[in-house]
Amino acid sequence: MAQSVLLTGAAGRVGTAILADLADKHEWRLMDRDPMTEDHPGEYVVADITDEETVREAMADIDVVIHLAGDPRPEAPWDSVLTNNIDGTQTVFEAAVDAGVEKVVFASSNHAVGAYETDERTPEMYRAHDDYLLDGTELPRPGNLYGVSKAAGESLGRYYHDEHGLSVACVRIGNLTKGHPPIDYERGQAMWLSYRDCAHLFDRCIRADYEFEIVYGISDNDRKYYSIDRAKASLGYEPQDNSAQHD
Amino acid sequence: MAQSVLLTGAAGRVGTAILADLADKHEWRLMDRDPMTEDHPGEYVVADITDEETVREAMADIDVVIHLAGDPRPEAPWDSVLTNNIDGTQTVFEAAVDAGVEKVVFASSNHAVGAYETDERTPEMYRAHDDYLLDGTELPRPGNLYGVSKAAGESLGRYYHDEHGLSVACVRIGNLTKGHPPIDYERGQAMWLSYRDCAHLFDRCIRADYEFEIVYGISDNDRKYYSIDRAKASLGYEPQDNSAQHD
Repeated sequence: MAQSVLLTGAAGRVGTAILADLADKHEWRLMDRDPMTEDHPGEYVVADITDEETVREAMADIDVVIHLAGDPRPEAPWDSVLTNNIDGTQTVFEAAVDAGVEKVVFASSNHAVGAYETDERTPEMYRAHDDYLLDGTELPRPGNLYGVSKAAGESLGRYYHDEHGLSVACVRIGNLTKGHPPIDYERGQAMWLSYRDCAHLFDRCIRADYEFEIVYGISDNDRKYYSIDRAKASLGYEPQDNSAQHD
Repeated sequence: MAQSVLLTGAAGRVGTAILADLADKHEWRLMDRDPMTEDHPGEYVVADITDEETVREAMADIDVVIHLAGDPRPEAPWDSVLTNNIDGTQTVFEAAVDAGVEKVVFASSNHAVGAYETDERTPEMYRAHDDYLLDGTELPRPGNLYGVSKAAGESLGRYYHDEHGLSVACVRIGNLTKGHPPIDYERGQAMWLSYRDCAHLFDRCIRADYEFEIVYGISDNDRKYYSIDRAKASLGYEPQDNSAQHD
């Protein structure tokens, strides 16, 4: 069944991957602080995620929010992630609850757990023979302040689920690129997420029934240190791509 | 060995418990936005935790920071915990790293995991026969936005440890009261922290060697749903009080 979906940060890379495959699958309301340069489905709202009034208005008649907006730079300074990522995400969750939205899908990041990649574990953990695996139940170990902001977004999601009944899925997105990452970029191979697997995963987040989930968003790579079992079991994720398989 | 300790939020309840027993054990620099009404050891700086310049100046020649400052109200609104608790804590960690401080002890809270107290588990989990136990390795489940801010402080601590080498102890403080909590307040009995156990626990956080720790700060109560094993093992915590034992 087609859902009415608000997509924040629609003009970014993840939004582009989602819309490439799902444009005609749902009713879209797109939001971004930048105008869309290409054709797009549905309505388009130009607004910053910190503009609370506009965010609240954009929630009207929405079933599902996919919240991608924020400063996407791993090296972003604290003031920016505090405002755009932490405060912006709280605005989205609060407005979603008040508007009666059913689900919020939060774009978390591999950077929320980047510091598990210690000198002792790397590069072995990037290789297929290594069995080190994160599954989403581990505590955050952010490798940068951007990652701290993503971990905070997950905690906000947990709170808005537990106390306000919102269904929340947090997707720790890996290395999203249109083509295969270079074969000698071991880390990128291990956490690759193809565009079509990305769109499919977010489609499952729109359609599936769940309470609160933290899942890893990567393709079914031979090399992996993120488990995709939870995404498969709770969301019905069935990735088609694998960084080790080139056509 | 006496350490040079900066205590933020010194005039609050936790600060009062700490200073009651440790006033002459360390060299103190106290900071609070309110002036101290009683006698106090060491230096006293009146400043808000959001005053970055003064916070930075207060770090000079400090070995250990005990960071208690923040909005302590469980029902505090988002804007206040965002500014005072999340942004304020980042200011403290960043300034500590820049000043070459060795350890930061962060006052986290039971509210970071308050939503584990579900309708299904309570009140059984507050009773001695129940074996439900949180040990500090579980993901945050904040019961309020104050708890979200404390979980964010823990993630910041993890980041500043992993990436900047700071020793960080996060203490999820239970129910700190001078006297025993009422016998019929089951939750309060289970998470009681006596003033002298509080002071002793923070003394251990000042003196012990550790990397990054999340521990629960409660007395050795018969009723408990927070494990104190990690506090004992990593910090040498040896509580003397038990909510079930009245004199």
